[in-house]
Amino acid sequence: MDGMLKGFLILSIVIAFIAFGFAVWLYFWVKKQPATNEKIHDIGELIRKGANTFLSKEYAILAKFAAVVAVLIFIFLPKPLWDGSFVDNLLMNLQMTIAYLAGTTFSAIAGKIGIQIATIANTRTAEAAQKGIRLSFLNGFRGGAVMGMAVVGTSLLGIALVFLLTQNSTLLLGFSFGASSLALFAKAGGGIFTKTADISADLVGKVELGIPEDDPRNPAVIADNVGDNVGDVAGMGADLFDSHVASLAASLVMAVALDKVILGGNHVALIFCYAAIGLLSSIIGIGFAKMGKNDNPTNALNTSTYLTTGIFAVLTALATLIFDFEWRMYFAATLGLFVGVIIGIATDYFTDDRKKPVQNVAEASESGPAFTILSGVSYGFLSVLPAMIGIAISALGAYLICAPLGIDTATKVTYGMFGISVAAVGMLSIVGMIISNDAYGPIVDNARGLAEMGNLGDEVVEITDKLDSAGNTVKAVTKGFAISAAGLTVISLLGAFLSEVNDAALERGLAGITSFDILNPMVFFGLLIGAAVPAVFSAMLMLGVNRNAERMVAEIHRQFNEIPGLKEGKEGVMPEYEKCILIATTGALKELIPAGLFAIIITIVVGLTGGVYAIGGFLTGNIVSGLILALFMSNSGGLWDNGKKYVEAGHHGGKGSQAHKAAVVGDTVGDPFKDTAGPSINTQITVVSLVSSLLAVIFLTWSIF
Amino acid sequence: MDGMLKGFLILSIVIAFIAFGFAVWLYFWVKKQPATNEKIHDIGELIRKGANTFLSKEYAILAKFAAVVAVLIFIFLPKPLWDGSFVDNLLMNLQMTIAYLAGTTFSAIAGKIGIQIATIANTRTAEAAQKGIRLSFLNGFRGGAVMGMAVVGTSLLGIALVFLLTQNSTLLLGFSFGASSLALFAKAGGGIFTKTADISADLVGKVELGIPEDDPRNPAVIADNVGDNVGDVAGMGADLFDSHVASLAASLVMAVALDKVILGGNHVALIFCYAAIGLLSSIIGIGFAKMGKNDNPTNALNTSTYLTTGIFAVLTALATLIFDFEWRMYFAATLGLFVGVIIGIATDYFTDDRKKPVQNVAEASESGPAFTILSGVSYGFLSVLPAMIGIAISALGAYLICAPLGIDTATKVTYGMFGISVAAVGMLSIVGMIISNDAYGPIVDNARGLAEMGNLGDEVVEITDKLDSAGNTVKAVTKGFAISAAGLTVISLLGAFLSEVNDAALERGLAGITSFDILNPMVFFGLLIGAAVPAVFSAMLMLGVNRNAERMVAEIHRQFNEIPGLKEGKEGVMPEYEKCILIATTGALKELIPAGLFAIIITIVVGLTGGVYAIGGFLTGNIVSGLILALFMSNSGGLWDNGKKYVEAGHHGGKGSQAHKAAVVGDTVGDPFKDTAGPSINTQITVVSLVSSLLAVIFLTWSIF
Repeated sequence: MDGMLKGFLILSIVIAFIAFGFAVWLYFWVKKQPATNEKIHDIGELIRKGANTFLSKEYAILAKFAAVVAVLIFIFLPKPLWDGSFVDNLLMNLQMTIAYLAGTTFSAIAGKIGIQIATIANTRTAEAAQKGIRLSFLNGFRGGAVMGMAVVGTSLLGIALVFLLTQNSTLLLGFSFGASSLALFAKAGGGIFTKTADISADLVGKVELGIPEDDPRNPAVIADNVGDNVGDVAGMGADLFDSHVASLAASLVMAVALDKVILGGNHVALIFCYAAIGLLSSIIGIGFAKMGKNDNPTNALNTSTYLTTGIFAVLTALATLIFDFEWRMYFAATLGLFVGVIIGIATDYFTDDRKKPVQNVAEASESGPAFTILSGVSYGFLSVLPAMIGIAISALGAYLICAPLGIDTATKVTYGMFGISVAAVGMLSIVGMIISNDAYGPIVDNARGLAEMGNLGDEVVEITDKLDSAGNTVKAVTKGFAISAAGLTVISLLGAFLSEVNDAALERGLAGITSFDILNPMVFFGLLIGAAVPAVFSAMLMLGVNRNAERMVAEIHRQFNEIPGLKEGKEGVMPEYEKCILIATTGALKELIPAGLFAIIITIVVGLTGGVYAIGGFLTGNIVSGLILALFMSNSGGLWDNGKKYVEAGHHGGKGSQAHKAAVVGDTVGDPFKDTAGPSINTQITVVSLVSSLLAVIFLTWSIF
Repeated sequence: MDGMLKGFLILSIVIAFIAFGFAVWLYFWVKKQPATNEKIHDIGELIRKGANTFLSKEYAILAKFAAVVAVLIFIFLPKPLWDGSFVDNLLMNLQMTIAYLAGTTFSAIAGKIGIQIATIANTRTAEAAQKGIRLSFLNGFRGGAVMGMAVVGTSLLGIALVFLLTQNSTLLLGFSFGASSLALFAKAGGGIFTKTADISADLVGKVELGIPEDDPRNPAVIADNVGDNVGDVAGMGADLFDSHVASLAASLVMAVALDKVILGGNHVALIFCYAAIGLLSSIIGIGFAKMGKNDNPTNALNTSTYLTTGIFAVLTALATLIFDFEWRMYFAATLGLFVGVIIGIATDYFTDDRKKPVQNVAEASESGPAFTILSGVSYGFLSVLPAMIGIAISALGAYLICAPLGIDTATKVTYGMFGISVAAVGMLSIVGMIISNDAYGPIVDNARGLAEMGNLGDEVVEITDKLDSAGNTVKAVTKGFAISAAGLTVISLLGAFLSEVNDAALERGLAGITSFDILNPMVFFGLLIGAAVPAVFSAMLMLGVNRNAERMVAEIHRQFNEIPGLKEGKEGVMPEYEKCILIATTGALKELIPAGLFAIIITIVVGLTGGVYAIGGFLTGNIVSGLILALFMSNSGGLWDNGKKYVEAGHHGGKGSQAHKAAVVGDTVGDPFKDTAGPSINTQITVVSLVSSLLAVIFLTWSIF
């Protein structure tokens, strides 16, 4: 390893630790904020315990799953133990297994930290609102930032450590796969959890018994509040951890291939340099984030995002100059980042209640729920276009910018393909900031509920309302950003797959791959089947929510029937909140596993049938239809949510009107769309891409055709 | 032209005329059935006039559209007039213009015939029900068969004539494009029309005024009944005309290329032979169709479909033997047909009310409309899988069967690709039978309404009910079949596109195309954008329905306010039905045009930006996401429709229950899904594919990159 690369690896590790240090500082800053209101404290404790119950249960099941996968990896990956030198394979497969487990563990730790801080910051934010919006904002934002720093810090640290110790890029894919399988549990599992609780609490509480939304008698009420943290904080964090790791892994696989053959190549160094600068920029951006005197919270969040973007652009330009990186790479990275921000803004149009789509859907609700659904679906479909064009332009642009640099003739990796992965790294460079903004949302959302339940008064609730509304607006932007970044990442994973296949082919004296030709029937075969997978996967998750909700409703009925005095609200009688949380947890994980296995098994079946060409098509179909469905579901879900809020704000008859009833139906449909199925598709795509890269050798040598 | 080919061309024309003769016989058979009930006759007349109003208006607007396109074709296609010899180009472009106009006209004539017979057969079927189910069935079925014979007869005649006169395969694409642009109007326009009328009639009639569904006071009631004929008969006919023509055109483009270089090649002859046999098999199948004594109508319909399939398989085997065609082609064709039938059966599972999905959705409706929607969307997504796997297997199978025959080195057309187009021809060979079954649906549906309005008694209504229910079941099968056939056809249109590009490249001494490599960034760029198009297209149609319904509601209000005695139902006072029909018509066409133009213009923009590679990706993305969305929307729509009927049959509380209200919401959402957007996507894909093939030269020479 040359000195410069080693330098950047150590720099990455150092900056990761700076991020941890910053996270610790932020954590204690939030924690030492006053927490005097007892009622708020008690409810907060219940939520915190519930979230931890979910996490421990989830991690326990995950540990079993990971153990099985680890054994399979140990036997088969990167090479079956018996294929060539047994001792060499044993050592290599052991490393791969460790890398996989490390990926799982690092992501799990980041999720745990996120839940920890979110369930502290919510109470502090609620109480701080009594002293004014600026302090309250800072509590919410800094709470979110702990999560941001933890996620990106562990991600960068993990990747840098694996590379420093092994210099083997295939192991990075193993690490990334570990992160992905955790993300699958956290995001899809959390998504099923949160909607199970939400639906069951509403069905029995609001519909059957007519008690208010957050009534403490309802055994599912804590599970419902826990769900927000579990899905939006831990799930989203794992999702972006996954994307960040995958973007680095994909680019590094190609960078290693290029560095191998190009004298004095510094591609690996460049990736670590840019990633480290990305994290550093986020640290600075977060450090400066606060609300000005006459400011509003949305502006404060956006300003710090733009600031981070600017700092990244300037610092990477300096680094490129100083370390003599290719300027073309620099432009690819900044193009990716720039387009990411643009896509976020375009997505915002479809979910912002000051814009036409939300207002039109609210208006259509006057004619009944069918029209809420139809118009929401229509706008959801329309919203797909800007993001797809944005991803297309950034991929094409990055390719065209970098392609003139040449091609690695051994693995057939082109600089153009590498450029796309650099664009993905660029887009994800500010992910620390994005996560901070995103985790801010559920914290202030919880704070709003706590302020109301703790009777802090109308003025305080109004402040938390403002903060919450900013969280919703910013969330649409970050979600569009996250999906697009995942899209660009999986495109570059296609390049990683190619590189893996050709490496293996080279070693075995087989013919490598130069293209995935659509006119090759194997590619087309894979394409058609791969395209169906995200649809089936999300259907399985949504049906899982339904089934799980049935179980939970039965449990709520049981408690109301068997616990004397509960229904009447007798002093001191408490429902067994933990039981509901447990049902939501185990049910969620039980429903998730068939969906996850379906995606993985169909990949393996296609690979063993049609070989690497079929997989090339399969991944492409999966990416394309996955992006369409993820964007559609996330955006229409967000739109219905804001449509309902818009009506509740007094438009078209306000609360209780026909339009409101219809808008509530839209919101209920949108919830699993945007919180369960839509964002889980990201993870599904990444998992499938990584499985393909890891099994490249097996598909190459064992397939039927 | 060799003797055998000429023989098959003439055979095709002869069989087309036999089909016409058969259609005439069927037409008069139906027409001479008794029509004695005056009330039924009067209502039938209103529906007939309304449908004709729509058709004349549609054709008038279409004529203008076609005139503009004809001028553009004359200037630009196949080559810009100034590109090379002006006189040669003038002659060639003139032929292309004529082919285009012929395609439009032939399809228009078939649609007109279909509407003509459907609006006669509906009254006859209603009255025949008084004499028993078997005669009534025969009326409905033979009425539908007139449409089937007219569509496939004109399609085969048109293609055979164009080829006989010119032997130029590019002109076939022009003919096919003409058929497609009409299909776009008929299918999408008809789809907007029917849902506009349906929604408006319900909103004002049932919701505002509380009058029954088919109350003659409602100015929109005739428009509503007209809609069924316009969308399901004329629209569906144009759609399948389009697919049939496109499958023949695509295969013939490749067949011509192969015949050019292969001594004694008989590929063109084979296509015409198989197509002619397909029509002949349908004639025989229709001739034998009737209900046995203890039979039910569903069985009768299915039996004749299987009979047709069997006859086709036997006759083509004989022809292959006698005329020494390649057996591999035979197997490709029968594979296509076989898979088509399987897909139809699999689709049926998701929309049949005796199966789990419909019953589960009905059950979910008990919890409210949000759950109707969520479970319906989930099953709709699941239903995508069998069809996608079926299409993938038939495409791959046909390719693998035929690939060993070789490749045409000049245009790079492989026998494998040609095999896929033969599979599409095979799948569509029995389309005459499919259309007959499909047109049977709206006829018996209308008959049911007429029997009720004409007070023919409960027993008669029950008979028409049985016939109607069979129509619904069969429809699900034919719809899955139609989408899959369109999928296979557009895949083979990719081959036609390749052939066109390489022909043009050869002529200009440019480098041809051998592959559309997914790793080529231009291809990927096109892929991402092409995938977004069906989503946006269907969103525009659905939003169009909403806007159009608003206009119509205003007109209904106006009539109720301005026509004295209308609201009160004063004897002799009639609403101005025509005005509503006119609004639905012009509005539908007005809303359709932006959607159609969007699809065409974005194709041109992508082609002029990224050239033929980008278009290759664009078409692929369009096909893949188009198939997913079309299957999802058609199947979930059918499922909701049957879910509502299942509840109405007395399950989960029956009519008027909470579950019923929720199921009605599902049905309302499903209507534009299955009747407007879903099936129109077929046409959108075909139109875009043909535009690409026709503009191949321009994209090859004028594109920026």
